[in-house]
Amino acid sequence: MIKMIHILLFVLLSVLLSSISNASVNDFCVADLKAPDTPSGYHCKSPTTVTADDFVFHGFVAGNTTNTFNAALTSAFVTDFPGINGLGISAARLDIAHGGSIPMHTHPGATELLIMVKGEITAGFMTPTAVYSKKLKPGDLFVFPQGQLHFQANSGKGQATAFLAFSSSNPGAQLLDLLLFGNNLPSDLIAQTTFLDVAQIKNIKARFGGRG
Amino acid sequence: MIKMIHILLFVLLSVLLSSISNASVNDFCVADLKAPDTPSGYHCKSPTTVTADDFVFHGFVAGNTTNTFNAALTSAFVTDFPGINGLGISAARLDIAHGGSIPMHTHPGATELLIMVKGEITAGFMTPTAVYSKKLKPGDLFVFPQGQLHFQANSGKGQATAFLAFSSSNPGAQLLDLLLFGNNLPSDLIAQTTFLDVAQIKNIKARFGGRG
Amino acid sequence: MIKMIHILLFVLLSVLLSSISNASVNDFCVADLKAPDTPSGYHCKSPTTVTADDFVFHGFVAGNTTNTFNAALTSAFVTDFPGINGLGISAARLDIAHGGSIPMHTHPGATELLIMVKGEITAGFMTPTAVYSKKLKPGDLFVFPQGQLHFQANSGKGQATAFLAFSSSNPGAQLLDLLLFGNNLPSDLIAQTTFLDVAQIKNIKARFGGRG
Amino acid sequence: MIKMIHILLFVLLSVLLSSISNASVNDFCVADLKAPDTPSGYHCKSPTTVTADDFVFHGFVAGNTTNTFNAALTSAFVTDFPGINGLGISAARLDIAHGGSIPMHTHPGATELLIMVKGEITAGFMTPTAVYSKKLKPGDLFVFPQGQLHFQANSGKGQATAFLAFSSSNPGAQLLDLLLFGNNLPSDLIAQTTFLDVAQIKNIKARFGGRG
Amino acid sequence: MIKMIHILLFVLLSVLLSSISNASVNDFCVADLKAPDTPSGYHCKSPTTVTADDFVFHGFVAGNTTNTFNAALTSAFVTDFPGINGLGISAARLDIAHGGSIPMHTHPGATELLIMVKGEITAGFMTPTAVYSKKLKPGDLFVFPQGQLHFQANSGKGQATAFLAFSSSNPGAQLLDLLLFGNNLPSDLIAQTTFLDVAQIKNIKARFGGRG
Amino acid sequence: MIKMIHILLFVLLSVLLSSISNASVNDFCVADLKAPDTPSGYHCKSPTTVTADDFVFHGFVAGNTTNTFNAALTSAFVTDFPGINGLGISAARLDIAHGGSIPMHTHPGATELLIMVKGEITAGFMTPTAVYSKKLKPGDLFVFPQGQLHFQANSGKGQATAFLAFSSSNPGAQLLDLLLFGNNLPSDLIAQTTFLDVAQIKNIKARFGGRG
Repeated sequence: MIKMIHILLFVLLSVLLSSISNASVNDFCVADLKAPDTPSGYHCKSPTTVTADDFVFHGFVAGNTTNTFNAALTSAFVTDFPGINGLGISAARLDIAHGGSIPMHTHPGATELLIMVKGEITAGFMTPTAVYSKKLKPGDLFVFPQGQLHFQANSGKGQATAFLAFSSSNPGAQLLDLLLFGNNLPSDLIAQTTFLDVAQIKNIKARFGGRG
Repeated sequence: MIKMIHILLFVLLSVLLSSISNASVNDFCVADLKAPDTPSGYHCKSPTTVTADDFVFHGFVAGNTTNTFNAALTSAFVTDFPGINGLGISAARLDIAHGGSIPMHTHPGATELLIMVKGEITAGFMTPTAVYSKKLKPGDLFVFPQGQLHFQANSGKGQATAFLAFSSSNPGAQLLDLLLFGNNLPSDLIAQTTFLDVAQIKNIKARFGGRG
Repeated sequence: MIKMIHILLFVLLSVLLSSISNASVNDFCVADLKAPDTPSGYHCKSPTTVTADDFVFHGFVAGNTTNTFNAALTSAFVTDFPGINGLGISAARLDIAHGGSIPMHTHPGATELLIMVKGEITAGFMTPTAVYSKKLKPGDLFVFPQGQLHFQANSGKGQATAFLAFSSSNPGAQLLDLLLFGNNLPSDLIAQTTFLDVAQIKNIKARFGGRG
Repeated sequence: MIKMIHILLFVLLSVLLSSISNASVNDFCVADLKAPDTPSGYHCKSPTTVTADDFVFHGFVAGNTTNTFNAALTSAFVTDFPGINGLGISAARLDIAHGGSIPMHTHPGATELLIMVKGEITAGFMTPTAVYSKKLKPGDLFVFPQGQLHFQANSGKGQATAFLAFSSSNPGAQLLDLLLFGNNLPSDLIAQTTFLDVAQIKNIKARFGGRG
Repeated sequence: MIKMIHILLFVLLSVLLSSISNASVNDFCVADLKAPDTPSGYHCKSPTTVTADDFVFHGFVAGNTTNTFNAALTSAFVTDFPGINGLGISAARLDIAHGGSIPMHTHPGATELLIMVKGEITAGFMTPTAVYSKKLKPGDLFVFPQGQLHFQANSGKGQATAFLAFSSSNPGAQLLDLLLFGNNLPSDLIAQTTFLDVAQIKNIKARFGGRG
Repeated sequence: MIKMIHILLFVLLSVLLSSISNASVNDFCVADLKAPDTPSGYHCKSPTTVTADDFVFHGFVAGNTTNTFNAALTSAFVTDFPGINGLGISAARLDIAHGGSIPMHTHPGATELLIMVKGEITAGFMTPTAVYSKKLKPGDLFVFPQGQLHFQANSGKGQATAFLAFSSSNPGAQLLDLLLFGNNLPSDLIAQTTFLDVAQIKNIKARFGGRG
């Protein structure tokens, strides 16, 4: 009798599961990074090949800060972590040595939420008329609204660490110095559109590999 | 003279149609279910192969309710009905025999609108502090806001039928019993994270095919 | 001992509920129709005054078809059913007597899904180069992609009934005859921009109350 | 010493650039028009093949207005201008000779913003109860909210020109005359669903190529 | 001469700033929690009263885990942190003592990204046919796609800490035990829609304050 | 007899119009700029007070370019043109005298489409590894994808004019010089986060009114 119920149950389950297994296609969409991208994200890997490992990212650890910036950014964006494809979220880890900083940059179209973990960071963003800046310590969060130019500088005595969350699975990171001085934008055009002196421009271009 | 106008007209029409026929690509996007999915839905079938049949779904009829649940769900989700791809809407039909129910479940990210057709259904959803539940008769609608845990039980004397509309072309249907007891989630982990007794868990696992 | 666990439990619950009760604000947003509208919908009623009745709509019943169109539309849009505010879904009931029709119309920005309930309806939408039209019987669904001009005509021998679901909580219903002939758009301007004869225009204006 | 800094700098840059070059995939998504479309737009061309030319559209010039409408529409939609794929914007140029007009039409789901450049255009849209119409001169803008039926007629003494911007990269242009009279929609069905006389319908069908 | 340039400059700046100061209204929208909510979030505080403090949240610290769950959730949702209003992101901190867990729950419509900070947590979510679960250590991330039922259990030897980011400024946290056993949902209805025994239901209701 | 049909018709119309007049609330949402803003835009003016004038913007004319930049931006954003509220589109007019430019700036979260009207403009945007820049003449369009740092410089012999369309009703305009040198961001912090010399910074601050 109980067996019969079980058989009937599985008849129903197979009916119910027909819609459910279809539906599970969209519960997640792990990126197939070898296929082309679309405006909404990468193609979905076949759900039958997805495993728990697709939803884990390893290596959210301190980067090497022995460099000019005395800073390192370790990203877990969709191209690093295919499981977040289409889900509108990603993360990064920030390590800044004494005296270092992540220079001025924007994330086009993504908001950034900073979680302080260790040390002290002075973080802020600017509008044409105001500066919104604070010294942050462990236990503090700071939000940089989408697309705003912002910075993070170690203002403490030792190493500083922060975790970053973004409202996009692929926020990018447009460093101002690289945009202005790291490509082949002509120096006189930069001077005209920034009011910087040409000498200053050429000086920084030498450091960031810019030509022209 | 009129003929000449017609000729000129068609010259213009062909110009106008050049943008119009391009544009019609996006007026609809019938799913090519054989191609990969993306976060925004399936690839579009070539518009030149689309016919009126792509916008029709047949078989929105009573399912077989001779089973343990005494209930049947007939879905018209994007995988059943490719014409709704990318349009943010889908439907299902609910048939519940006397004493039956659609047990607790969620649709991740989709709102459900229930249209009562026949009989009486007690439907509701819960928040941690309140139950929003009503007895529904033909002529009544009920809305289950997105992602809320909800149920539908036949509370009348005969068969009950309802039509469901969803704010997603692929709403899924996550039955709580299948999530907890239909896969290989370890029983002691279920006990720890639900406060159910292990004996109770094993009992229901036996019915829903769960292992572990 | 068990009592102590319960006390401790409620200590935790009150902590957990502090975020949960806040969060429930956004699980739903029942419209306060007396307050102003915004681009995303109406203000939310205070969650403490929301009851199960806010999620039910009564009166999804046959409208009166004794009129020129031999048809009736009974809407459950956000202004009729505040519980669907912000949820991207709504519904309507269509009753068409023998020989009647819902004339050409659009829903700006909303897709419509038609569920046949009784009788026979010929439904369709047009692009500049094609007509997508079908005779529909109970058990059939038809989808009208967003913003497309479409119609529903009773093509059977008796009454016809269909339920409609929309991908917007306020889809509107722009009847072509009312847009062209029901307001004070000048007849010569209509003639110029539709290629209809002025006599024809004035004739239909007389029926739909148009001036000018 | 400075050289050493530069070396260290490039070590960091290569670390930073690893995320940046990935991220740049999504800063833009130039359409690969040969690949299939998706609900969010076309596949992205490989970023390594993108050049400045992908972001430029040539040919936004006066169209030929020697035709029945005395008007021309030159579109820069995604199928004409792949660089706007996924960016939610597009444009068109409108040239209307003396006495001409762009007849009644809709853009399903896209808002249109008209910028007057030359001459005088009377533009407007209608709701069932009101006409929102104005005579526009250079220096004026007019907005047609999404999905509304609207028209533009030259009401001045010479040529008129306007630029149009749309809130979609593929807004379409559904001309009412083509929807009703340019395909094979049966004349009696048109009569029933528009209240036009069959003679009038057949008359206009002859002009727009409609059959049936 | 330089002075004149400065004067002219400020003339231009005032022109440019007229649009810029308007625009800054939308660069951020700090919530006015005393005004009503809308489907897109709270009303914006007047930008002239916004200071850097609006973008900081203090108190992202360990919660008290001396309770039945041996766990604590510290939320930084929009109702706790008005600066994230309308930005589609929020955060929480999770502290779980030895043997504790955050029981089964969902966030309707929000994806959750977990960043491991200390100890070991076993985290996972389930579909009807699979369990996606992993043991996580510092340096690991895990993503729970939107609306999925999931859990986090301390599987290590000491305290465990994780930071959570959500793709919504108000993700909620629907604990399964509270939804089923913490309100006045009738026990026989729970039994019918979960397949749990009534005795088991009443037992857990006693712990979570449920009536009926 | 015909009269009777008309009476019956108006009975139906009043039924149909009950939903239609409600629906028209959402066909557009003209901003009430005196009420607070929300994340989705301003409150809607009462539809009964809306007239055709709400959909027109006057003053899209050449601005005064007699200033340091030799350039003028005339905006038609939502705060200038309430009729575009909630519609995801806006416009601006650019006039640049010989030798002038609109310096480096971003629109957070909005794409910009430039329509060349007169003269010659060199326009472009940069990623860390490439410059996408072109000389534009009348008949050319250029698109700046959302959030990218970009510029427009008059590279011709006379005046240059362009019209701009944005994929947001409130795109803002974040001029880099104002963000860095127009507020009270400390000079040493700017130096640290841009690699500019302090002397250079102070020099430009003097021109843009910056302190600190």
